[in-house]
Amino acid sequence: MKIEIITIGDELLLGFTTDTNAAYLARELAGHGVEVVRRATVGDDAEAIAAAVREALDRTGAVITTGGLGPTADDLTKPAIAALFGRRLEMREDIVAMIEERFRQYGFKGQMPVSNRQQALVPEGARVLENRHGSAPGIWIEDERNRWVAMLPGVPREMRGMTLDVIIPEVEARMGSVREVVCSRTLRCMGISESHLADLLGDRARAVRGLPVAYLPSLAGIDLRLTTRGMSAADATTLLDAAIQELRPIIGEHIYGEDETDLAGVVLQRSRARGFRIAVAESCTGGMLGARLTAIPGSSEVVLGGIIAYDDVVKVNLLGVDPATIRAHGAVSEQTAREMAAGVRDRMEADIGIAITGIAGPGGGTPAKPVGLVWIAVDVDGQVRASHRVYPGNREEIRQRASQGALDLVRRMLGNA
Amino acid sequence: MKIEIITIGDELLLGFTTDTNAAYLARELAGHGVEVVRRATVGDDAEAIAAAVREALDRTGAVITTGGLGPTADDLTKPAIAALFGRRLEMREDIVAMIEERFRQYGFKGQMPVSNRQQALVPEGARVLENRHGSAPGIWIEDERNRWVAMLPGVPREMRGMTLDVIIPEVEARMGSVREVVCSRTLRCMGISESHLADLLGDRARAVRGLPVAYLPSLAGIDLRLTTRGMSAADATTLLDAAIQELRPIIGEHIYGEDETDLAGVVLQRSRARGFRIAVAESCTGGMLGARLTAIPGSSEVVLGGIIAYDDVVKVNLLGVDPATIRAHGAVSEQTAREMAAGVRDRMEADIGIAITGIAGPGGGTPAKPVGLVWIAVDVDGQVRASHRVYPGNREEIRQRASQGALDLVRRMLGNA
Repeated sequence: MKIEIITIGDELLLGFTTDTNAAYLARELAGHGVEVVRRATVGDDAEAIAAAVREALDRTGAVITTGGLGPTADDLTKPAIAALFGRRLEMREDIVAMIEERFRQYGFKGQMPVSNRQQALVPEGARVLENRHGSAPGIWIEDERNRWVAMLPGVPREMRGMTLDVIIPEVEARMGSVREVVCSRTLRCMGISESHLADLLGDRARAVRGLPVAYLPSLAGIDLRLTTRGMSAADATTLLDAAIQELRPIIGEHIYGEDETDLAGVVLQRSRARGFRIAVAESCTGGMLGARLTAIPGSSEVVLGGIIAYDDVVKVNLLGVDPATIRAHGAVSEQTAREMAAGVRDRMEADIGIAITGIAGPGGGTPAKPVGLVWIAVDVDGQVRASHRVYPGNREEIRQRASQGALDLVRRMLGNA
Repeated sequence: MKIEIITIGDELLLGFTTDTNAAYLARELAGHGVEVVRRATVGDDAEAIAAAVREALDRTGAVITTGGLGPTADDLTKPAIAALFGRRLEMREDIVAMIEERFRQYGFKGQMPVSNRQQALVPEGARVLENRHGSAPGIWIEDERNRWVAMLPGVPREMRGMTLDVIIPEVEARMGSVREVVCSRTLRCMGISESHLADLLGDRARAVRGLPVAYLPSLAGIDLRLTTRGMSAADATTLLDAAIQELRPIIGEHIYGEDETDLAGVVLQRSRARGFRIAVAESCTGGMLGARLTAIPGSSEVVLGGIIAYDDVVKVNLLGVDPATIRAHGAVSEQTAREMAAGVRDRMEADIGIAITGIAGPGGGTPAKPVGLVWIAVDVDGQVRASHRVYPGNREEIRQRASQGALDLVRRMLGNA
């Protein structure tokens, strides 16, 4: 089955809003064996909507739209597509009642605004798609040649909910029982460059078991993605499993996880397994490492807290760094990083102390200590390891890379729990 | 001038990558008076690329593509579009030399990979667009009817650089001297609900001076956006200035800035003006507030640091919160927040202490203290103010709203510097 996606709205077309709906829909559909062959975006313009939908229908006969179902005058998706199918819009009193009920549930007082009644207009002969996540229902309209358009709301939460509730089951029911899907698996790597990784992989650098290897560098390291096409979900899983098992021993300890794995989660899990508690001492990252660790539910079992030692006064007074160390080696130095890690571990009575001190820029760099230089030290139970890197990128990127680098040093010190 | 944008790549079409290029291009072009009428995405498929470009050319005669200019076999943009224009591809030795030079500059050793020569193929009669930001040059191809396609690389940094270097000047040169642009201005508001804001605006809730008012709620508060269309840049600026001046006194202190203003920047600026230094005490946000403040270059003049008091032990030992306070009122309470703010201000010898303690979820809520409950306290020079909210959303959203709420309380206490 081939589908086209059309996202609708001036905000999208003008680039004020980044289109995350289209990417989500494409991913979900591909994972269920539907091939998305084209995506388009048009503004809140009835003619442009109708033209884009008509052309897409001529190519594939199957179109999903998002957006333009709201209660205001610039919400034109329904009238434009109804006209394209030669249908009138009917006011459905059952939907009016449903929307009114939803208003009451959310504690709105008084009458439902008249404009919301527009959301109850449905093209004749079309099917209403229940929206359990918001007020505007979706619409499924189909002609005698089984060409169809599914209209979903543009609010991402509602669109996502309805994709899972309604669209995927509907599309699956229309496809044969043997479906060819697009599947992918990702190996997440840290602490190794793209070219070093390719060298390590040798013959498998470009493809493994016939699957092309995609290198996706990001602030979180390098992801290796393998993607299968044109096979059943079961065959894809078998092939991906085999390919991943072939790559794992070659890349070894540089792999910190698969797919959506967060390195902070890996560190929490390994610390929890050992009964270790963590404290952080952050200079240039200013709290970012603490924020990443505590972003994960349940982190309170492992994370005690930390000290943001942005000013050197704080490094001395609250972390117990020796002022002579800072004078002799500078605040960004191995020695200071080591004392920060040991200091926060001691003050917080933690098992693991993690310290980051660096020059995030844009100012403050020197030839000897350039912008991007970051020292990281980790104290696990009195054993301290330190490392440094000169990270590329802007201030924010350097800080994110530094946080990720610190987590990776902890991961390597804890080994496989 | 009307333009269509076509972004090319399987990763985009499959939704593995979110398309930020299209939004960037649309924004830049609209700001220079170019109307983007449609955007489309197709995969790495020569036929699909050619079809999408042909259709777009038929509609507007002006197309910008991004992606598919790399050195590998799945980079098909140039051959597909050259064929559409009936042109052969020529190997341009001057470009080969340029790419080789770039390799040397970046310190790569040995021969340039043969595959990179593909990047030096140019359709006959096409113009090469210099790329100062990467190795693949762009291409401008035009037919005898002045219908054109500009091909840009897909790497966002390169695409953005070339848009400013080449595309905008080229497009401006082709437009008349009186250009109609799309301009927008945003008033950023905090601490007021969307409906309250609409009530406050009264007659101006839907439109001011003929400009429709868009309400854009986000984790940073509510943005009010006004957008002009179809006027010159000078007229747009005059009208937007007048509209903004009309709204400002009505919304008053709920406005913290315009356009891209970051509330953390406003707080830093007001603190700097008073010679105040800041320390933070964070429980549920785990360092996020510190990270936001220190994300801004120059923050070291104002931010001393902070204490991440995730565990109650840290609240007592390092912030000096009275254990009896926690026992009597709980860690998430006005009293604890107040003691945290005063404690961090005292320990760090700061002028301003900012404290956040809350229940970010998903677990840990009770009927009396539900998930989302956050207490914030700010101590400015010994004057403490506290406030609480029950924030909606998931764990990450609650934490971001809490950080933003804390910054807003500081801003209001400091007044207009």
